[in-house]
Amino acid sequence: MSDVLSQTIANIRPLSETAMAKAKERQDILTKPTGSLGRLEELSIQIAGIQEKPMPQITQKAVIVIAADHGVAVQGISAYPQEVTSQMVLNFLHGGAGINVISRQVGARVIIVDMGVSGRLGSNTGLVSRKIAAGTQDMSKGPAMTLAQAKKTLEVGIEIVTAEFQKGLDIVATGDMGIGNTTASSAICAVMIGKTVAEVTGRSTGLDDRQLQHKIAIINKAVAVNRPDASKPMEVLAKVGGFEIGGLAGVILGAASHRVPIVIDGFISGAAALVAAGLCPRVKDYLIAGHCSVEPGHKLLLKYLGLRPLLDLEMRLGEGTGAALGISIAETSVRILAEMATFSEAGVSDKGE
Amino acid sequence: MSDVLSQTIANIRPLSETAMAKAKERQDILTKPTGSLGRLEELSIQIAGIQEKPMPQITQKAVIVIAADHGVAVQGISAYPQEVTSQMVLNFLHGGAGINVISRQVGARVIIVDMGVSGRLGSNTGLVSRKIAAGTQDMSKGPAMTLAQAKKTLEVGIEIVTAEFQKGLDIVATGDMGIGNTTASSAICAVMIGKTVAEVTGRSTGLDDRQLQHKIAIINKAVAVNRPDASKPMEVLAKVGGFEIGGLAGVILGAASHRVPIVIDGFISGAAALVAAGLCPRVKDYLIAGHCSVEPGHKLLLKYLGLRPLLDLEMRLGEGTGAALGISIAETSVRILAEMATFSEAGVSDKGE
Repeated sequence: MSDVLSQTIANIRPLSETAMAKAKERQDILTKPTGSLGRLEELSIQIAGIQEKPMPQITQKAVIVIAADHGVAVQGISAYPQEVTSQMVLNFLHGGAGINVISRQVGARVIIVDMGVSGRLGSNTGLVSRKIAAGTQDMSKGPAMTLAQAKKTLEVGIEIVTAEFQKGLDIVATGDMGIGNTTASSAICAVMIGKTVAEVTGRSTGLDDRQLQHKIAIINKAVAVNRPDASKPMEVLAKVGGFEIGGLAGVILGAASHRVPIVIDGFISGAAALVAAGLCPRVKDYLIAGHCSVEPGHKLLLKYLGLRPLLDLEMRLGEGTGAALGISIAETSVRILAEMATFSEAGVSDKGE
Repeated sequence: MSDVLSQTIANIRPLSETAMAKAKERQDILTKPTGSLGRLEELSIQIAGIQEKPMPQITQKAVIVIAADHGVAVQGISAYPQEVTSQMVLNFLHGGAGINVISRQVGARVIIVDMGVSGRLGSNTGLVSRKIAAGTQDMSKGPAMTLAQAKKTLEVGIEIVTAEFQKGLDIVATGDMGIGNTTASSAICAVMIGKTVAEVTGRSTGLDDRQLQHKIAIINKAVAVNRPDASKPMEVLAKVGGFEIGGLAGVILGAASHRVPIVIDGFISGAAALVAAGLCPRVKDYLIAGHCSVEPGHKLLLKYLGLRPLLDLEMRLGEGTGAALGISIAETSVRILAEMATFSEAGVSDKGE
């Protein structure tokens, strides 16, 4: 086992206890009551451990958005037609989508990857074309992809984040686009965390009650037809997943292997994190949950992964929008650690002096 | 009644329904499922109504931090000695405090105002000196200030924000510094929202159980000695308030009169908002709650004011730190409204097409 995936997983090391202890020590002598910056303090310490630096830095920021289509879309599980996937990819490339605006606001570059869009995209400047196939197969009738394809999605994700790492990368956020991908994510989530499909399935882009029941029925059918085994995450990905979900799982594993913190977005990125953590449980220490999505399965999977979201702004857009907002909180946390004066530097009396 | 305060209150007009309707209309045709950016959408619509512009802008940003001391500090209600107020003001001026770092991160200028610090500050570049007195009187023995002083704090706050408005101001955040000011804020909060002192009083900078009970006893004494009347907000401010709390209430009223959105910080800014809303209930429409503080009274007063905090990062530092983070969310929300492509611009199919 010396392939890219095994090698990447082997390279995911524990967080640096030394760096974390030093960061904690410094937080405690900065000019503020101990712990008064709450989760910003914890976050800076986690990032110190990830980057293996007592005083971590975040200047190079990227959002990796992976797009792909889903065969199961023919079952009418989305409020939007499948062509929206390719149309939105073009919108990303022209800078007009939510993720473009938020990324500009937080100073992150956006990498748009096609891992399986079914529509024609032509040759577009800026698009990273790594198409596995023109959409997955309909998972309600059989596996969404082959096991070889599932492995390929992980490898492509690793390659993409490694290329960004080589350009300079202090933090990465994950994003997705793909009509039908909450359907695949609900299936993965139900299987991996052991909940019923109904518990983890939501209205996504705006389904009514009847449409929601139909979506649940289709996912239940996909699980019954494929019988994915939770102890085999790559098999789960192949049977009921999606190309972008596998790609994002690869991005997560690859980033962790390079000691880069990963801000995950909503439900789709969460499903990718479940696959990644299934393959390498230690990767959880490298994850930061950007926000809590409105999708009911998201809260459950975050709890399962031991993650608390930074933001809860009732968002459900995907694309990496919640994760990109989280980048700014993470950056703030490390700037506080680096730039605040200590009690002695500022000549401020500490408690009980 | 043609004084500054009355004139300011008279100038606080309803939000623009026209601008809000136009902003809502545009949100609904941007390339995303309707409502999928959740509170970011609501926030952009509120700011459109405040600024009276269908496409609001946030480029000029300021955090106004007002510092003052509290006579009640002699009763030992804080974990920190009183001199920390002046020491921290110097830290603000040197750029080493939490609020300085976060303001740099969000691109906001910081205005530091002395409205009643008891320590010597000397002549410091950048400090706005508007001292009412060298700290308030001990409110556990009588009124914290005279009614004339209370009115003066409001007027000074109005003047300060008006000066910033004249320089250019699209959003303002409120911040505070003053050892003992959660004690005054708890008293104001209990009186104004009709809760017991125990319900709204917390550990602030880190009191233990015994110290917390002592703090509650002192606040109860202050309320019993002064008998503030909730229907007279300026009297409440005079009897159990603080100079910085009055100053921030003035900033809130002044900003609203200029149609500038106000991001309020934690418990002290919240007490200021209670005073401001007592004088002019309409001002509530101009408020954005930056975050939810750990102080128990904060959640209760936000509910009373009808505000939902944007962030909950378990912070309790004050200084405007939570509000400054909120500025960045507000700015993101208006950039989304302005910069995202519409369905027709991007050639993306809308739902049900």
